[in-house]
Amino acid sequence: MKKSLGLDVGGTHVKAAVLSSDGRVLDRAVVRTPESRQVDEVTSLLIQVSQALLAKHTDVEAVGVGAPGLIDLDRRVIRTAPNFPTWKNVPLAELIAAEIPLPVSLENDVNCFGLAEHRWGSGMGFQHLIALAIGTGIGGAIILDGKLYRGSSGAAAELGHVSVDLWGPRCNCGNLGCVERYLGEIWYAQAAAEALDDGTITSPRQVSARADAGDEQALRFIIERGEILGVACVSLINAFDPEAIIIGGGVALAGEPLFAGVRKAIRERLYPTTAEKIRIIPAKLGTISGAMGAAIL
Amino acid sequence: MKKSLGLDVGGTHVKAAVLSSDGRVLDRAVVRTPESRQVDEVTSLLIQVSQALLAKHTDVEAVGVGAPGLIDLDRRVIRTAPNFPTWKNVPLAELIAAEIPLPVSLENDVNCFGLAEHRWGSGMGFQHLIALAIGTGIGGAIILDGKLYRGSSGAAAELGHVSVDLWGPRCNCGNLGCVERYLGEIWYAQAAAEALDDGTITSPRQVSARADAGDEQALRFIIERGEILGVACVSLINAFDPEAIIIGGGVALAGEPLFAGVRKAIRERLYPTTAEKIRIIPAKLGTISGAMGAAIL
Repeated sequence: MKKSLGLDVGGTHVKAAVLSSDGRVLDRAVVRTPESRQVDEVTSLLIQVSQALLAKHTDVEAVGVGAPGLIDLDRRVIRTAPNFPTWKNVPLAELIAAEIPLPVSLENDVNCFGLAEHRWGSGMGFQHLIALAIGTGIGGAIILDGKLYRGSSGAAAELGHVSVDLWGPRCNCGNLGCVERYLGEIWYAQAAAEALDDGTITSPRQVSARADAGDEQALRFIIERGEILGVACVSLINAFDPEAIIIGGGVALAGEPLFAGVRKAIRERLYPTTAEKIRIIPAKLGTISGAMGAAIL
Repeated sequence: MKKSLGLDVGGTHVKAAVLSSDGRVLDRAVVRTPESRQVDEVTSLLIQVSQALLAKHTDVEAVGVGAPGLIDLDRRVIRTAPNFPTWKNVPLAELIAAEIPLPVSLENDVNCFGLAEHRWGSGMGFQHLIALAIGTGIGGAIILDGKLYRGSSGAAAELGHVSVDLWGPRCNCGNLGCVERYLGEIWYAQAAAEALDDGTITSPRQVSARADAGDEQALRFIIERGEILGVACVSLINAFDPEAIIIGGGVALAGEPLFAGVRKAIRERLYPTTAEKIRIIPAKLGTISGAMGAAIL
């Protein structure tokens, strides 16, 4: 059985997983991302983590790296990364390969999440799939005909920047009313603090805790956010005609009420024949999915 | 040089073109669609038109039919067609093939338009392309990696039903704020009649005539409609990362002011690096493009 090592470079944590070719996680590691977020410090850490795991698993044959931002697959560099503002055209795979005697591949981290969910998670068996990872922002991965779709320049699947309201609030990207502007963790928490008139709310988790404790207003807020997400899903379904949409990331932990809102929007807004078929499914693999997807590369 | 015959079945006209394999239109015919729009009458007309052209061009080797609505490519039937309400699961290719001794293919009409523009029109040379045909509604065609993208069930590219305003006016499809609801000919004319406070406006052409005659308000209306279309284009670009968007159909004849609005929205709302690259181009082949695309099949 072949083994590979996957690395997931996040703004707060670096995650690593040693994977067998049938998708079992044989080993894993999670360490904090250096606060400086400088290329050299992050790279050193990635090499360190890799070497520690490779010492235990000497039969690993390849390394995959999932990194945030816009990846230029031809030149194998990270062009820009929102969470790592000093990174410009970073050849991360080559930097790691200089110290690790294995082939190293590079891919966008949300694409890795999508690949893992497609291969071993909620997306198993689907040939046409959209995966959304809702954290600070919303990242997307698109699987068409069983393969990752990257677009003409690797910039496809910026699904957080599908606008649901042309006159809506301004997003960091410059557009108005992006779905990310309603569902991204910070915006979500801010809107909840306002809707529930409680300035102590600073995370989606707090809203869910309240809803779980029976707070009707909190419950309604989550369902309504789900509906906004559902409006974006309806546009994506009308455009891509996927079999399923997989939703993961921190905000997806709001769970059933969020998914109920998404499904309500789909029921009310999509052609009935399409609405009957489409599957809206929570992601399954948890926080290690990015590293698992990177190991697929 | 091989020849093929393309048929484009529209709500008002049936168009036919005899095409050489290098894209020259060798012959053409345009006849009115029977007012009843019944399957048997339309089929008889298509056979008649085909036989007349095939009598002149005895070396035609195949026939392609572009038809509106949702096509089931596996079963080769038109499942439903908005402009032909009595059509349900119509095996149009087989009905024609019963009388014409040639292979007959069937495809959605807007996909035919997209194929033709990709092969011989404004889309030549692009591998990743979105084509929008704006008439009564907005139809879309998506070319990815040089090939038509149909989705998991043939229902992809319903791009008129990308919503730009989750609280917008209700569209015929059930959704709110679909871009078709602002740009489709009838809605466009209604909105213009209101904005310009002139109940005699019943077509987009009249708005353009006014703008051409120096009416500032009419000009502003067209630019603003272009901006709404541009908002949908920004969402599509963020999702698909195409090289170009081709815009055709009756409303596209509003020309430069409409395209100026689209480009304004793109400049203001898209990442600058993406906005610089994307091309927004008027369709080139005119009303015969559907029949040309059908002939490609």
